[in-house]
Amino acid sequence: MWHDGTMEFAVRVTVKLREGIADPQGATIERSLPALGYDGVSRVSVGKVIDFTLAATDEASAKSEVHEMCEKFLANPVIEDVVVEVAPA
Amino acid sequence: MWHDGTMEFAVRVTVKLREGIADPQGATIERSLPALGYDGVSRVSVGKVIDFTLAATDEASAKSEVHEMCEKFLANPVIEDVVVEVAPA
Repeated sequence: MWHDGTMEFAVRVTVKLREGIADPQGATIERSLPALGYDGVSRVSVGKVIDFTLAATDEASAKSEVHEMCEKFLANPVIEDVVVEVAPA
Repeated sequence: MWHDGTMEFAVRVTVKLREGIADPQGATIERSLPALGYDGVSRVSVGKVIDFTLAATDEASAKSEVHEMCEKFLANPVIEDVVVEVAPA
């Protein structure tokens, strides 16, 4: 707890393309692995992970602030889904 | 369990830049958020997540196959660290 009443939270935002949205990175990996000797791989998808520290008064407000950032800035809600994880740092 | 003796595993590989390696995506996000009204954000880093299904005889061999794929193909061990999660699908 800082003297301004905030705590620090460790945040992980995982951003994945929504089901049905073309994923060229995943498709490339899936095509390439058999050529390298890995045959058992299927359903490859690639996403993005954004880790940061957030100062907030409590976990609920940290979560709601992160969801707002995701909608406005960190993800594209038209084509992407996010998973937000927040834990005391 | 398939008739060839393999099981399916859900795999997640999280690839992050190693400590000390420049992370321009993370730096850009960290610079931009205060301008958008989010002041409490620090230590932003961006990575990649690769999800797939893997057919293997057991969890130990699935894990070792995934670590091998990471070294050869999914990550650059010079600048990136990986975390591998494997669970029965």
